[in-house]
Amino acid sequence: MGIIVVNTKAYEEAIGVKALEIAKIMEKIGKEYGVEMAIAVQPTDISLIKSNTSIKVLSQHIDAIESGAYTGFISPLAVRRAGADGTLLNHSEHRMKIEEIADCIEIGKKIGLISIVCAGNLNVAKSIACLEPDYVAVEPPELIGGEISVSEAKPDVIKKAVEVVKPCKILCGAGIKKASDVEKAIGLGVDGILVASGVVKAKDREKILAEFARAMI
Amino acid sequence: MGIIVVNTKAYEEAIGVKALEIAKIMEKIGKEYGVEMAIAVQPTDISLIKSNTSIKVLSQHIDAIESGAYTGFISPLAVRRAGADGTLLNHSEHRMKIEEIADCIEIGKKIGLISIVCAGNLNVAKSIACLEPDYVAVEPPELIGGEISVSEAKPDVIKKAVEVVKPCKILCGAGIKKASDVEKAIGLGVDGILVASGVVKAKDREKILAEFARAMI
Amino acid sequence: MGIIVVNTKAYEEAIGVKALEIAKIMEKIGKEYGVEMAIAVQPTDISLIKSNTSIKVLSQHIDAIESGAYTGFISPLAVRRAGADGTLLNHSEHRMKIEEIADCIEIGKKIGLISIVCAGNLNVAKSIACLEPDYVAVEPPELIGGEISVSEAKPDVIKKAVEVVKPCKILCGAGIKKASDVEKAIGLGVDGILVASGVVKAKDREKILAEFARAMI
Amino acid sequence: MGIIVVNTKAYEEAIGVKALEIAKIMEKIGKEYGVEMAIAVQPTDISLIKSNTSIKVLSQHIDAIESGAYTGFISPLAVRRAGADGTLLNHSEHRMKIEEIADCIEIGKKIGLISIVCAGNLNVAKSIACLEPDYVAVEPPELIGGEISVSEAKPDVIKKAVEVVKPCKILCGAGIKKASDVEKAIGLGVDGILVASGVVKAKDREKILAEFARAMI
Repeated sequence: MGIIVVNTKAYEEAIGVKALEIAKIMEKIGKEYGVEMAIAVQPTDISLIKSNTSIKVLSQHIDAIESGAYTGFISPLAVRRAGADGTLLNHSEHRMKIEEIADCIEIGKKIGLISIVCAGNLNVAKSIACLEPDYVAVEPPELIGGEISVSEAKPDVIKKAVEVVKPCKILCGAGIKKASDVEKAIGLGVDGILVASGVVKAKDREKILAEFARAMI
Repeated sequence: MGIIVVNTKAYEEAIGVKALEIAKIMEKIGKEYGVEMAIAVQPTDISLIKSNTSIKVLSQHIDAIESGAYTGFISPLAVRRAGADGTLLNHSEHRMKIEEIADCIEIGKKIGLISIVCAGNLNVAKSIACLEPDYVAVEPPELIGGEISVSEAKPDVIKKAVEVVKPCKILCGAGIKKASDVEKAIGLGVDGILVASGVVKAKDREKILAEFARAMI
Repeated sequence: MGIIVVNTKAYEEAIGVKALEIAKIMEKIGKEYGVEMAIAVQPTDISLIKSNTSIKVLSQHIDAIESGAYTGFISPLAVRRAGADGTLLNHSEHRMKIEEIADCIEIGKKIGLISIVCAGNLNVAKSIACLEPDYVAVEPPELIGGEISVSEAKPDVIKKAVEVVKPCKILCGAGIKKASDVEKAIGLGVDGILVASGVVKAKDREKILAEFARAMI
Repeated sequence: MGIIVVNTKAYEEAIGVKALEIAKIMEKIGKEYGVEMAIAVQPTDISLIKSNTSIKVLSQHIDAIESGAYTGFISPLAVRRAGADGTLLNHSEHRMKIEEIADCIEIGKKIGLISIVCAGNLNVAKSIACLEPDYVAVEPPELIGGEISVSEAKPDVIKKAVEVVKPCKILCGAGIKKASDVEKAIGLGVDGILVASGVVKAKDREKILAEFARAMI
């Protein structure tokens, strides 16, 4: 079964109760089509989503810290206690040091957070897979937020990525705006999609999510 | 009226419901002695504290971003919507770029977050005061987490800092462990104290907070 | 007497012997017009420029470190021993933490490096002046590399900056392409200009430098 | 044939002409024993070493930038033009983002800089090897600068690292102080050693280098 991960970034229209609105729609569509749904929100919104929906909740980032004197960093434990099921890591808007990625994956495993680690190209995807996260998310940075989807623009990259990251699961993202983008991605062997503005900025979020979900099954 | 700010950092014993426990004690003592109380927590815990106590809630950090595509950064707006009254900035464990401090203070003013900006020495305190935050918090980094308080070890620094940051309000911190540390600080002209392990790691948090509060009035 | 500072950034046409070519032209024009010249180059090129010209040589950045185990950071001492007279700090392409700026200015004073600290707006310029560098360089980031100069687009910012940074000396930069830009800047009270592509990318570097120099006297 | 890489960090006793002194000794010993020698110096010292010795010269770091407007970053091209044969990357004192490591290796290959990328543990070593640098240098951070060498304290880590990084070449480092440390390392299958204080801070640098060299052949 495929997964749809929606990243709300720091979009005004997806913070606080507005994040919950999106999560509620995801929950509904997820049940309707039997597709797994996960939302990656601001840390402030994790508990809100967790206590009001049944979908998976992710942090958009965690810092590579254990308990202690680390003022202002995002504590993995705090994220977990707030109800998160996992976290994005190394998003193209928030690249991380390789040692920190390794540490975050390891800390996550200890406390029960799955990890979805982003990679901008094949080489980096393969390199990250060695660190054994739950998912590698392949997102060519030049396509993020654009009009052409990764599955349309770079099907070969996706195809090869599916191979090189094995046995890691794989998501693809960047520019995903319509059902055919998702269909192609699934056809290329991915386990799910990572989408942001394609859902958050959509005129009709329920409609587009339903189309994505239908394309996954 | 003075203010006591407790920074919970990423201490395991001050995350989630454990942060709320501390906030509850602060609320009680604050009312008893008529002292203003503020707790700086993990972003995940802001809404929890806000909806269950009447004390001020602060974020430990915000990033200098407005609404938009900033995955994994701490959005000032998200912090505000979750219920925060303000934020720490530039803590010695999380130093910031000068332009980012300036931007965060300005963003904070627009959306209703007060700012408490840390400085490790007099020069930096004066420099930060030019950016017009609500508070400058003077904390010599070499004393943080230690046994000797800043008001005992460096009374001259505190005294001069009170002058150079005017008309900004001023907090002092680092090594504050007992009532006499607070008394001295208040005597030197500060508007309040910033304390972390001194409360979080105290055997009897209620007792120490009561002593601090009594020393402030 | 005014100063012209040329920042060669990481432009291919201003690295190695190509940096020396520019420095040689600057030396010639500087002598001809009695204008002080300084070139801010890659650290690798400091000794080359120093041993082959008489103009001032600057690093484009130093890290806030003393002698010790700091692999891969730019040592102020190394820069000094290689022959540098000073350094840029906090360029808009390389913003620094406020504590690091303070430390670099102080380290520089101890070992004989003058400091030119960049600021993107008035507030930050004032704040940086409190740290007592040799020069504050005001460069609105949105004008850098553009066609309209700061002295044309924001004369009021320059005028006020001259006041707020006193007694620090002041440079202005961003978009400076022609003699009239320099004339205006000098008329507004600045002590010199900071220019990059305006010289490095000029078709006739000698001609433009001569025009800038003439406009300064 | 093994290689000895000496990292001079920002040690006062290894900057400028003092770096050259060390390089001269390395050159002598290298010839005497037929061991390859490389010194990783401050960028300011690259041309000095290159024009006065025949040993390999490395930068301690490069930034992931091509030609352009990148003030204050260490340009790979500048390092190359100054005479560097290669660069260290991701040293434990200067960890890098995974995408930057990937980009630096690639830029290096284009312009003729070999890359030695540091890793603190097996997982990260394997991950870095996927990026196809010339060497992976395994240095457990907790042993760097200490009295017990990595080959003594963690022979298993070295042994496994030799396997997992294949076909990349491998160096080991951290705590290497005596000939037996080098002998063990070579016995475990490494292609050379990375050493800093063990040489820079040695009472008799020539003697220790000669011992290291003898242990390698």
